[in-house]
Amino acid sequence: MAGYNVAPLERLVEQFEKMPGIGYKTAQRLAYYVLNLSKTEAEQFSSAIIDAHDKIHYCKICCNLTDQELCPVCKSEKRDKSIICVVETPRDAMAMEATNEYEGTYHVLHGAISPLNDIGPDDLKIKELLARLGLGDVTEVIMATNPTVEGDATAMYLSRLLKPMGIKVTRLAYGIPVGGDLEYADQVTLARALEGRNEL
Amino acid sequence: MAGYNVAPLERLVEQFEKMPGIGYKTAQRLAYYVLNLSKTEAEQFSSAIIDAHDKIHYCKICCNLTDQELCPVCKSEKRDKSIICVVETPRDAMAMEATNEYEGTYHVLHGAISPLNDIGPDDLKIKELLARLGLGDVTEVIMATNPTVEGDATAMYLSRLLKPMGIKVTRLAYGIPVGGDLEYADQVTLARALEGRNEL
Repeated sequence: MAGYNVAPLERLVEQFEKMPGIGYKTAQRLAYYVLNLSKTEAEQFSSAIIDAHDKIHYCKICCNLTDQELCPVCKSEKRDKSIICVVETPRDAMAMEATNEYEGTYHVLHGAISPLNDIGPDDLKIKELLARLGLGDVTEVIMATNPTVEGDATAMYLSRLLKPMGIKVTRLAYGIPVGGDLEYADQVTLARALEGRNEL
Repeated sequence: MAGYNVAPLERLVEQFEKMPGIGYKTAQRLAYYVLNLSKTEAEQFSSAIIDAHDKIHYCKICCNLTDQELCPVCKSEKRDKSIICVVETPRDAMAMEATNEYEGTYHVLHGAISPLNDIGPDDLKIKELLARLGLGDVTEVIMATNPTVEGDATAMYLSRLLKPMGIKVTRLAYGIPVGGDLEYADQVTLARALEGRNEL
Protein backbone atom coordinates (compact mmCIF):
# COMPACT_ATOMS: atom_id res chain seq x y z
CA MET A 1 0.00 0.00 0.00
CA ALA A 2 2.88 2.31 0.89
CA GLY A 3 4.01 2.25 -2.74
CA TYR A 4 0.71 3.73 -3.74
CA ASN A 5 0.40 6.61 -1.40
CA VAL A 6 -1.10 9.65 -3.10
CA ALA A 7 -0.65 12.31 -0.44
CA PRO A 8 -3.65 14.60 -1.13
CA LEU A 9 -5.90 11.56 -1.43
CA GLU A 10 -4.63 10.06 1.81
CA ARG A 11 -5.20 13.36 3.60
CA LEU A 12 -8.80 13.40 2.38
CA VAL A 13 -9.33 9.77 3.38
CA GLU A 14 -8.00 10.62 6.84
CA GLN A 15 -10.48 13.47 7.14
CA PHE A 16 -13.40 11.19 6.34
CA GLU A 17 -12.07 8.43 8.55
CA LYS A 18 -12.25 10.71 11.59
CA MET A 19 -16.02 10.97 11.18
CA PRO A 20 -18.33 8.92 13.39
CA GLY A 21 -19.22 5.50 11.98
CA ILE A 22 -16.85 5.85 9.02
CA GLY A 23 -14.12 3.21 8.72
CA TYR A 24 -11.14 3.16 6.39
CA LYS A 25 -12.93 1.46 3.50
CA THR A 26 -15.90 3.82 3.60
CA ALA A 27 -13.57 6.81 3.94
CA GLN A 28 -11.81 5.65 0.77
CA ARG A 29 -15.10 5.30 -1.03
CA LEU A 30 -16.14 8.82 -0.01
CA ALA A 31 -12.76 10.25 -1.02
CA TYR A 32 -13.08 8.68 -4.48
CA TYR A 33 -16.56 10.13 -4.70
CA VAL A 34 -15.08 13.57 -4.07
CA LEU A 35 -12.45 13.02 -6.76
CA ASN A 36 -15.18 12.23 -9.25
CA LEU A 37 -17.09 15.45 -8.50
CA SER A 38 -16.89 18.32 -10.94
CA LYS A 39 -14.79 21.29 -9.86
CA THR A 40 -17.90 23.32 -9.06
CA GLU A 41 -19.39 20.52 -6.99
CA ALA A 42 -16.17 20.07 -5.03
CA GLU A 43 -16.10 23.78 -4.32
CA GLN A 44 -19.74 23.72 -3.20
CA PHE A 45 -18.99 20.84 -0.86
CA SER A 46 -15.92 22.53 0.53
CA SER A 47 -17.67 25.84 1.09
CA ALA A 48 -20.73 24.15 2.62
CA ILE A 49 -18.42 22.87 5.35
CA ILE A 50 -16.90 26.27 6.07
CA ASP A 51 -20.27 27.97 5.73
CA ALA A 52 -22.09 25.72 8.14
CA HIS A 53 -19.22 25.98 10.55
CA ASP A 54 -19.03 29.76 10.42
CA LYS A 55 -22.70 30.67 10.34
CA ILE A 56 -24.29 28.20 12.73
CA HIS A 57 -24.27 28.85 16.45
CA TYR A 58 -26.51 28.31 19.45
CA CYS A 59 -29.89 30.04 19.78
CA LYS A 60 -29.62 32.64 22.55
CA ILE A 61 -32.61 31.19 24.34
CA CYS A 62 -32.81 27.43 23.82
CA CYS A 63 -29.23 26.58 22.72
CA ASN A 64 -30.51 24.82 19.61
CA LEU A 65 -28.59 25.39 16.38
CA THR A 66 -29.48 28.36 14.23
CA ASP A 67 -27.93 30.82 11.80
CA GLN A 68 -30.05 33.67 13.20
CA GLU A 69 -29.98 35.22 16.67
CA LEU A 70 -32.97 33.11 17.73
CA CYS A 71 -34.02 29.75 16.35
CA PRO A 72 -37.35 29.59 14.44
CA VAL A 73 -39.11 27.97 17.41
CA CYS A 74 -38.05 30.59 19.96
CA LYS A 75 -38.83 33.35 17.46
CA SER A 76 -42.27 32.02 16.53
CA GLU A 77 -45.25 33.65 18.21
CA LYS A 78 -47.33 30.53 17.72
CA ARG A 79 -45.25 28.40 20.07
CA ASP A 80 -46.27 28.02 23.69
CA LYS A 81 -43.42 29.58 25.68
CA SER A 82 -44.72 28.16 28.97
CA ILE A 83 -43.67 24.60 28.06
CA ILE A 84 -40.04 23.60 27.58
CA CYS A 85 -39.04 20.24 26.18
CA VAL A 86 -35.51 19.36 27.32
CA VAL A 87 -33.55 17.29 24.81
CA GLU A 88 -29.95 16.12 24.61
CA THR A 89 -29.10 17.14 21.04
CA PRO A 90 -30.42 19.33 18.22
CA ARG A 91 -31.30 16.16 16.34
CA ASP A 92 -33.60 15.10 19.19
CA ALA A 93 -35.38 18.45 18.88
CA MET A 94 -35.73 17.81 15.15
CA ALA A 95 -37.22 14.38 15.83
CA MET A 96 -39.76 15.99 18.18
CA GLU A 97 -40.58 18.63 15.56
CA ALA A 98 -41.15 15.90 12.99
CA THR A 99 -44.09 14.60 15.04
CA ASN A 100 -45.92 17.88 14.36
CA GLU A 101 -47.56 17.37 17.74
CA TYR A 102 -45.51 19.60 19.96
CA GLU A 103 -46.43 23.27 20.36
CA GLY A 104 -44.00 24.34 23.08
CA THR A 105 -40.33 25.32 22.97
CA TYR A 106 -37.13 23.34 23.42
CA HIS A 107 -34.00 23.44 25.46
CA VAL A 108 -30.98 21.62 24.09
CA LEU A 109 -28.56 20.39 26.75
CA HIS A 110 -25.88 19.33 24.24
CA GLY A 111 -25.20 16.08 26.01
CA ALA A 112 -26.21 14.09 29.06
CA ILE A 113 -24.65 13.58 32.46
CA SER A 114 -22.15 10.76 32.10
CA PRO A 115 -19.54 10.34 34.84
CA LEU A 116 -17.82 7.62 32.80
CA ASN A 117 -17.14 10.11 30.00
CA ASP A 118 -16.34 12.85 32.48
CA ILE A 119 -19.43 14.87 31.57
CA GLY A 120 -20.99 16.56 34.58
CA PRO A 121 -23.92 18.97 34.93
CA ASP A 122 -21.60 21.93 34.36
CA ASP A 123 -20.74 20.67 30.87
CA LEU A 124 -24.39 20.85 29.82
CA LYS A 125 -26.56 23.89 29.09
CA ILE A 126 -28.26 23.63 32.49
CA LYS A 127 -27.34 27.15 33.64
CA GLU A 128 -29.10 28.48 30.54
CA LEU A 129 -32.19 26.40 31.35
CA LEU A 130 -32.30 27.69 34.93
CA ALA A 131 -31.98 31.26 33.65
CA ARG A 132 -35.02 30.71 31.42
CA LEU A 133 -37.01 29.24 34.30
CA GLY A 134 -35.99 32.15 36.49
CA LEU A 135 -38.02 34.46 34.26
CA GLY A 136 -41.11 32.77 35.71
CA ASP A 137 -43.24 32.16 32.60
CA VAL A 138 -42.62 28.43 32.42
CA THR A 139 -45.15 26.04 33.91
CA GLU A 140 -44.01 22.66 32.60
CA VAL A 141 -40.70 21.10 31.67
CA ILE A 142 -40.87 17.89 29.65
CA MET A 143 -37.82 15.66 29.96
CA ALA A 144 -37.16 14.17 26.55
CA THR A 145 -33.62 12.94 27.19
CA ASN A 146 -32.75 9.55 25.72
CA PRO A 147 -34.08 6.38 27.39
CA THR A 148 -30.56 5.42 28.45
CA VAL A 149 -28.77 5.37 31.79
CA GLU A 150 -27.21 8.78 31.03
CA GLY A 151 -30.47 10.26 29.77
CA ASP A 152 -32.39 9.00 32.78
CA ALA A 153 -29.74 10.28 35.19
CA THR A 154 -29.91 13.69 33.54
CA ALA A 155 -33.70 13.74 33.74
CA MET A 156 -33.60 12.74 37.43
CA TYR A 157 -30.96 15.36 38.20
CA LEU A 158 -32.94 18.11 36.50
CA SER A 159 -36.25 17.09 38.03
CA ARG A 160 -34.75 17.30 41.55
CA LEU A 161 -33.40 20.73 40.66
CA LEU A 162 -36.65 22.03 39.15
CA LYS A 163 -39.38 20.57 41.36
CA PRO A 164 -38.51 22.79 44.36
CA MET A 165 -39.03 25.76 42.01
CA GLY A 166 -42.67 24.74 41.74
CA ILE A 167 -42.41 23.69 38.11
CA LYS A 168 -44.25 20.64 36.81
CA VAL A 169 -41.65 18.19 35.50
CA THR A 170 -42.77 15.37 33.20
CA ARG A 171 -40.99 12.61 31.30
CA LEU A 172 -41.81 11.06 27.90
CA ALA A 173 -43.71 7.79 28.32
CA TYR A 174 -41.86 4.50 28.11
CA GLY A 175 -43.61 1.69 26.32
CA ILE A 176 -43.76 -0.54 23.29
CA PRO A 177 -42.97 1.23 20.00
CA VAL A 178 -45.88 1.61 17.59
CA GLY A 179 -45.67 -0.99 14.82
CA GLY A 180 -43.30 -3.07 16.89
CA ASP A 181 -43.72 -6.72 17.72
CA LEU A 182 -44.53 -7.63 21.32
CA GLU A 183 -42.56 -10.82 20.93
CA TYR A 184 -39.39 -8.88 20.23
CA ALA A 185 -39.85 -6.15 22.84
CA ASP A 186 -37.18 -6.39 25.53
CA GLN A 187 -38.22 -7.21 29.10
CA VAL A 188 -37.51 -3.80 30.56
CA THR A 189 -39.53 -1.99 27.90
CA LEU A 190 -42.40 -4.43 28.29
CA ALA A 191 -42.36 -4.05 32.07
CA ARG A 192 -42.44 -0.27 31.68
CA ALA A 193 -45.30 -0.54 29.17
CA LEU A 194 -47.26 -2.64 31.67
CA GLU A 195 -46.50 -0.22 34.46
CA GLY A 196 -47.65 2.73 32.38
CA ARG A 197 -50.79 1.09 30.96
CA ASN A 198 -53.76 3.33 30.21
CA GLU A 199 -57.48 2.70 30.45
CA LEU A 200 -59.15 2.16 27.07
CA MET B 1 -39.23 19.82 10.52
CA ALA B 2 -39.80 22.78 8.23
CA GLY B 3 -39.93 25.03 11.28
CA TYR B 4 -36.44 24.01 12.16
CA ASN B 5 -34.66 24.51 8.91
CA VAL B 6 -31.20 25.97 9.44
CA ALA B 7 -30.16 26.76 5.86
CA PRO B 8 -26.36 26.33 6.07
CA LEU B 9 -26.82 23.10 8.00
CA GLU B 10 -29.34 21.74 5.49
CA ARG B 11 -26.98 22.56 2.64
CA LEU B 12 -24.22 20.61 4.35
CA VAL B 13 -26.54 17.67 5.05
CA GLU B 14 -27.50 17.65 1.36
CA GLN B 15 -23.85 17.52 0.36
CA PHE B 16 -23.24 14.48 2.54
CA GLU B 17 -26.47 12.84 1.46
CA LYS B 18 -25.31 12.80 -2.16
CA MET B 19 -22.42 10.53 -1.21
CA PRO B 20 -22.60 6.80 -1.93
CA GLY B 21 -24.11 4.74 0.89
CA ILE B 22 -24.99 7.81 2.97
CA GLY B 23 -28.67 8.25 3.85
CA TYR B 24 -30.37 11.26 5.43
CA LYS B 25 -29.78 10.21 9.03
CA THR B 26 -26.08 9.51 8.50
CA ALA B 27 -25.71 12.74 6.53
CA GLN B 28 -27.18 14.59 9.52
CA ARG B 29 -24.78 12.84 11.88
CA LEU B 30 -21.82 13.79 9.68
CA ALA B 31 -23.01 17.40 9.39
CA TYR B 32 -23.24 17.67 13.19
CA TYR B 33 -19.75 16.20 13.41
CA VAL B 34 -18.53 19.01 11.15
CA LEU B 35 -20.27 21.61 13.31
CA ASN B 36 -18.43 20.29 16.34
CA LEU B 37 -15.02 20.58 14.69
CA SER B 38 -12.74 23.44 15.63
CA LYS B 39 -12.36 26.20 13.06
CA THR B 40 -8.92 24.92 12.06
CA GLU B 41 -10.18 21.37 11.64
CA ALA B 42 -13.10 22.51 9.51
CA GLU B 43 -10.72 24.48 7.32
CA GLN B 44 -8.43 21.48 7.00
CA PHE B 45 -11.35 19.32 5.98
CA SER B 46 -12.58 21.86 3.48
CA SER B 47 -9.17 22.37 1.92
CA ALA B 48 -8.47 18.62 1.81
CA ILE B 49 -11.45 18.33 -0.52
CA ILE B 50 -10.30 21.11 -2.84
CA ASP B 51 -6.71 19.93 -2.63
CA ALA B 52 -7.41 16.32 -3.51
CA HIS B 53 -9.66 17.46 -6.30
CA ASP B 54 -7.16 19.89 -7.78
CA LYS B 55 -3.95 17.94 -7.41
CA ILE B 56 -4.96 14.40 -8.24
CA HIS B 57 -5.15 13.26 -11.84
CA TYR B 58 -4.47 10.12 -13.86
CA CYS B 59 -0.99 8.67 -14.24
CA LYS B 60 0.15 9.23 -17.83
CA ILE B 61 0.94 5.56 -18.28
CA CYS B 62 -1.44 3.43 -16.22
CA CYS B 63 -4.35 5.86 -15.58
CA ASN B 64 -4.14 5.23 -11.83
CA LEU B 65 -4.53 8.24 -9.55
CA THR B 66 -1.48 10.29 -8.67
CA ASP B 67 -0.43 13.82 -7.81
CA GLN B 68 2.78 13.45 -9.86
CA GLU B 69 3.21 12.96 -13.59
CA LEU B 70 3.66 9.22 -13.10
CA CYS B 71 2.31 7.07 -10.30
CA PRO B 72 4.83 5.48 -7.90
CA VAL B 73 4.42 2.06 -9.55
CA CYS B 74 5.07 3.28 -13.08
CA LYS B 75 7.97 5.41 -11.86
CA SER B 76 9.59 2.63 -9.83
CA GLU B 77 12.51 0.83 -11.45
CA LYS B 78 11.88 -2.24 -9.32
CA ARG B 79 8.56 -3.06 -10.94
CA ASP B 80 8.37 -5.49 -13.82
CA LYS B 81 7.13 -3.44 -16.77
CA SER B 82 6.47 -6.55 -18.87
CA ILE B 83 3.42 -7.53 -16.80
CA ILE B 84 0.28 -5.41 -16.65
CA CYS B 85 -2.51 -6.11 -14.20
CA VAL B 86 -5.79 -4.67 -15.54
CA VAL B 87 -8.16 -3.47 -12.80
CA GLU B 88 -11.45 -1.59 -12.83
CA THR B 89 -10.73 1.08 -10.23
CA PRO B 90 -7.78 2.64 -8.36
CA ARG B 91 -9.07 0.94 -5.23
CA ASP B 92 -8.68 -2.46 -6.87
CA ALA B 93 -5.06 -1.59 -7.63
CA MET B 94 -4.61 -0.64 -3.98
CA ALA B 95 -6.07 -3.99 -2.91
CA MET B 96 -3.59 -5.78 -5.18
CA GLU B 97 -0.75 -3.69 -3.77
CA ALA B 98 -1.79 -4.62 -0.26
CA THR B 99 -1.01 -8.28 -0.99
CA ASN B 100 2.68 -7.32 -1.39
CA GLU B 101 2.89 -10.18 -3.90
CA TYR B 102 2.62 -8.37 -7.19
CA GLU B 103 5.73 -7.01 -8.85
CA GLY B 104 4.32 -5.83 -12.18
CA THR B 105 2.47 -2.67 -13.18
CA TYR B 106 -1.21 -1.81 -13.38
CA HIS B 107 -3.67 -0.45 -15.83
CA VAL B 108 -6.82 1.15 -14.43
CA LEU B 109 -9.82 1.00 -16.76
CA HIS B 110 -11.99 3.29 -14.60
CA GLY B 111 -15.03 1.08 -14.96
CA ALA B 112 -16.23 -2.05 -16.69
CA ILE B 113 -18.26 -2.69 -19.82
CA SER B 114 -21.90 -2.47 -18.81
CA PRO B 115 -24.49 -2.05 -21.58
CA LEU B 116 -27.22 -1.62 -18.95
CA ASN B 117 -25.48 1.47 -17.61
CA ASP B 118 -24.56 2.61 -21.10
CA ILE B 119 -20.84 2.05 -20.52
CA GLY B 120 -19.10 0.71 -23.61
CA PRO B 121 -15.43 -0.04 -24.36
CA ASP B 122 -14.90 3.54 -25.50
CA ASP B 123 -15.77 4.85 -22.04
CA LEU B 124 -12.92 2.87 -20.47
CA LYS B 125 -9.18 3.47 -20.66
CA ILE B 126 -8.75 0.72 -23.26
CA LYS B 127 -7.14 2.92 -25.91
CA GLU B 128 -4.46 3.79 -23.36
CA LEU B 129 -3.88 0.10 -22.65
CA LEU B 130 -3.53 -0.72 -26.32
CA ALA B 131 -1.06 2.13 -26.72
CA ARG B 132 1.09 0.62 -23.94
CA LEU B 133 0.95 -2.81 -25.52
CA GLY B 134 1.88 -1.31 -28.88
CA LEU B 135 5.30 -0.43 -27.45
CA GLY B 136 6.01 -4.15 -27.45
CA ASP B 137 7.60 -4.68 -24.02
CA VAL B 138 4.60 -6.38 -22.46
CA THR B 139 4.45 -10.16 -22.32
CA GLU B 140 1.54 -10.81 -19.99
CA VAL B 141 -1.71 -9.05 -19.15
CA ILE B 142 -3.47 -10.22 -15.99
CA MET B 143 -7.21 -9.54 -15.94
CA ALA B 144 -8.12 -8.53 -12.40
CA THR B 145 -11.54 -7.08 -13.15
CA ASN B 146 -14.25 -7.85 -10.61
CA PRO B 147 -15.82 -11.33 -10.53
CA THR B 148 -19.14 -9.91 -11.76
CA VAL B 149 -21.00 -10.09 -15.06
CA GLU B 150 -19.58 -6.70 -16.06
CA GLY B 151 -16.05 -7.54 -14.93
CA ASP B 152 -16.12 -10.88 -16.73
CA ALA B 153 -17.48 -9.30 -19.90
CA THR B 154 -14.70 -6.71 -19.82
CA ALA B 155 -12.07 -9.42 -19.30
CA MET B 156 -13.47 -11.46 -22.20
CA TYR B 157 -13.62 -8.41 -24.47
CA LEU B 158 -10.03 -7.47 -23.71
CA SER B 159 -8.69 -11.00 -24.03
CA ARG B 160 -10.20 -11.29 -27.51
CA LEU B 161 -8.58 -7.98 -28.39
CA LEU B 162 -5.17 -8.85 -26.98
CA LYS B 163 -4.65 -12.50 -27.83
CA PRO B 164 -4.24 -11.83 -31.58
CA MET B 165 -1.41 -9.47 -30.58
CA GLY B 166 0.46 -12.48 -29.23
CA ILE B 167 0.19 -11.40 -25.62
CA LYS B 168 -0.42 -13.92 -22.85
CA VAL B 169 -3.73 -13.02 -21.18
CA THR B 170 -4.51 -14.49 -17.76
CA ARG B 171 -7.36 -14.10 -15.27
CA LEU B 172 -7.28 -14.14 -11.45
CA ALA B 173 -8.31 -17.57 -10.12
CA TYR B 174 -11.86 -18.11 -8.95
CA GLY B 175 -12.28 -20.23 -5.84
CA ILE B 176 -13.24 -20.37 -2.21
CA PRO B 177 -11.97 -17.42 -0.15
CA VAL B 178 -9.25 -18.22 2.38
CA GLY B 179 -10.70 -18.42 5.88
CA GLY B 180 -14.18 -18.87 4.44
CA ASP B 181 -16.59 -21.65 5.28
CA LEU B 182 -17.28 -24.25 2.60
CA GLU B 183 -20.82 -24.59 3.90
CA TYR B 184 -21.55 -20.96 3.12
CA ALA B 185 -19.78 -20.75 -0.24
CA ASP B 186 -22.26 -20.19 -3.07
CA GLN B 187 -22.74 -22.90 -5.70
CA VAL B 188 -21.10 -21.01 -8.54
CA THR B 189 -17.98 -20.23 -6.53
CA LEU B 190 -17.76 -23.82 -5.33
CA ALA B 191 -18.19 -25.16 -8.86
CA ARG B 192 -15.40 -22.83 -10.04
CA ALA B 193 -13.19 -23.93 -7.16
CA LEU B 194 -13.73 -27.57 -8.14
CA GLU B 195 -13.04 -26.81 -11.77
CA GLY B 196 -9.81 -25.03 -10.93
CA ARG B 197 -8.56 -27.57 -8.38
CA ASN B 198 -4.80 -28.00 -8.07
CA GLU B 199 -2.73 -31.07 -7.29
CA LEU B 200 -1.36 -31.13 -3.78
